[in-house]
Amino acid sequence: MAEAGVALACDLGGTNLRVALVDGAGTIRAAEKRTLVDRAPEAVVALLAALAGEVLRGQGTTIDRVAAVGIGVAGPCLGATGVVVVAPNLGWRDVPFGAMVERALGRRVRVVNDLSAAAWGEAAVGGARGAKDVVLIFVGSGVGSGLILDGRLYEGCGGLAGEFGHTKVVAEGGRLCGCGEHGCLEAYAGGHNIARRLRELAAEGRAAGILRAAGGDPDRLGGAALERAAEEGDPEAVALRDEIGRMLGVQIANVVTLLNPARLILGGGVLTGMPGLKARAIDWIRRATGRPQLARLTVLDAALGDDAGLIGAGLLALAGEAA
Amino acid sequence: MAEAGVALACDLGGTNLRVALVDGAGTIRAAEKRTLVDRAPEAVVALLAALAGEVLRGQGTTIDRVAAVGIGVAGPCLGATGVVVVAPNLGWRDVPFGAMVERALGRRVRVVNDLSAAAWGEAAVGGARGAKDVVLIFVGSGVGSGLILDGRLYEGCGGLAGEFGHTKVVAEGGRLCGCGEHGCLEAYAGGHNIARRLRELAAEGRAAGILRAAGGDPDRLGGAALERAAEEGDPEAVALRDEIGRMLGVQIANVVTLLNPARLILGGGVLTGMPGLKARAIDWIRRATGRPQLARLTVLDAALGDDAGLIGAGLLALAGEAA
Repeated sequence: MAEAGVALACDLGGTNLRVALVDGAGTIRAAEKRTLVDRAPEAVVALLAALAGEVLRGQGTTIDRVAAVGIGVAGPCLGATGVVVVAPNLGWRDVPFGAMVERALGRRVRVVNDLSAAAWGEAAVGGARGAKDVVLIFVGSGVGSGLILDGRLYEGCGGLAGEFGHTKVVAEGGRLCGCGEHGCLEAYAGGHNIARRLRELAAEGRAAGILRAAGGDPDRLGGAALERAAEEGDPEAVALRDEIGRMLGVQIANVVTLLNPARLILGGGVLTGMPGLKARAIDWIRRATGRPQLARLTVLDAALGDDAGLIGAGLLALAGEAA
Repeated sequence: MAEAGVALACDLGGTNLRVALVDGAGTIRAAEKRTLVDRAPEAVVALLAALAGEVLRGQGTTIDRVAAVGIGVAGPCLGATGVVVVAPNLGWRDVPFGAMVERALGRRVRVVNDLSAAAWGEAAVGGARGAKDVVLIFVGSGVGSGLILDGRLYEGCGGLAGEFGHTKVVAEGGRLCGCGEHGCLEAYAGGHNIARRLRELAAEGRAAGILRAAGGDPDRLGGAALERAAEEGDPEAVALRDEIGRMLGVQIANVVTLLNPARLILGGGVLTGMPGLKARAIDWIRRATGRPQLARLTVLDAALGDDAGLIGAGLLALAGEAA
C-alpha cells in the first residue's frame, strides 16, 4: 500500500493552515494551504478536515489508509491530551483541539507545539540528524524554542516547555512583551517588538538613520531597516543591534550551558533576514557558553525552512505509531 | 534475602566519601564516612572498596548480594560510561571512575552527578514524590542543579547538563568564577565567592557593617555575616544581598520558564543559612517566571538534606536494575 508509513501532517499558524502527506523520510508528498478567515476552533477544525480531504483525494487515498495524523500548532500544547494550552495568534486558551480533530477525522491525532515539531523534524531529517539532545531556537515575529532531550520531545509538565522567548533579560523596568509581562527576551528580539521599538524611537526623533534606511516610512521600520542602517554604520542602529545580539546570544548560551545539547539549530525570519545580528548573537553564544558545553556543541542553521513544523508533526506522529 | 532491593550507595564530595546501604524506600540501613586524604582516583577507589567492605560486613552481607551499586560524584558525569567529566574539588578530569570501581568491586556501577542524584532522591522519596518534571537548585559553596525531565534523569550529551551555576548573569566585566570564566551565577551566589567578595570589600574599607557582623575578623566574612548585617539594616549588606537574591531568582525563573517543571526544589547551605536571601530569591522567582509556568509550579525545600545524594544514587542504581 502506497500509504504505509505516510502521515497526514498539519501546521496551524496564526495566519495559515497547511495540510500535507509526509512520508517517513520527511518528504512532503502533497500539500494544501489556506489563509485562516475564521479562527474559532470549530471553523479551524472544519477547514482542516476539508483540506485533509482534498490532499487525500488528490493522492487517491483516504484517511483510514494513512499511518498517523500529526498537527503542529503555534502555541504551547499538551501532547498527551491534545489540548492547545495557549495560542495567542489564534486567541485560543485550553482548547481541546486534538479531541475535536479526532472527532472530525475519525482518527487519533498527535498535537504538538510547532517549534517542538520543527525541532523534531530537524533532528530527524535535517542538519541535526542522529543527535539525541537538540535545542532549536527560533527568532521571528516571536521568539521560541523546541527541545529534544535524550531523544524525546520535551514538553514540560503543562506543555509550556521551550517558552524561551519569555525568559527575562531585564529584571526591572523592561519593555512590555506581547504576553503582558515585562523584560522578556521576545520584547527585545522578536520581529514585531523590534519594529514597535523603532517606531517609538522614530516618534521621539531618535532613529533618523534607521528611518532613512526604511525609506523615510515609519511603517517600513523593522529588522531589515535596522540591519541596513547598522551595516551603514549609523551609531544608533549599531548600538541597538549590538544590544539585541548580546541579549539573544547570552540567553541562548545559558540554555546551552544548562542543557548541554549536541546541536543548536538557529532559525526564524529575524535571524535569516539580519545576518549581522545573527553573527553578533553567535559571537555571544561562543563567549558566554560554558567552555566544556561549547566544546561539545555544533551550531547549525535550520535546514527545513517553513516546512520544518509540517514535516516534524508528520514524523512525530509516525514515531508515536511505531513506539 | 534481606538484601533484595538494597543498593550499595556512595557519595563522593570534595572533602568526604560516604558509603551506605540504601533500600528501595530510600532508607539508609547503614553508613560509613571518611575524610579524603589522598584524592588520586586510585586512592579514592581503594577507600571506597574498603568502606563498602565495612558497611557490607556490618550488615552481615556481601557485595554479590546487593541489588545494585550507585555513586554520586561532585562533578559532571556521563552515566552511560561512568566517566567523571570534571570534578574541580577532586582535581579530576575525564576519569573512568565507573570502570575503576567496577574492577575493584566486581559489580556494575552507576555513576551520576551528585546533584542529579539528589534531584532523583527528592523526586523519588522526598517532597517532589510523584512529579515527572523536577528541577533541583542547590546553592552552597558552589551553585548547581539536577534535572529530572519526563521522569528521567537528564544528563546532556556530555554529562554536563545542570551546570546552572555557570550560566552567565553578567555579560561583560563580570566577576571571575572558580571555573576560570567571568560573570557566572556561582561567582556571585556561591558561598566561597560571597566570602571572597566580602573580603575584597573589607580590604577596600567598604564593608564596615558586614565586618562588624563577622566579629571584626575578615576570615569569618561570609554568607552568615552578610545575612546578619542585612537584617540589622546595614545599607551595603542590604544592597549586596538584594543583588544576589535578584540574580539567583531571575536565573532560576528563566529555568522554570524554559523547562516548565512541576516542582522546584531549593537546597544548599547558602539558602538554608541565609533565610533573608532565600526569601528575596523566591520573590524574584515569583516575579520573573512566566505566569503560566508559575501557575503550574510548586516550590519546595530539599527534604533529604545531606543524604539526598547518597539516597538518590542508591535509588537510581535500583531503578536502573529494574529497567
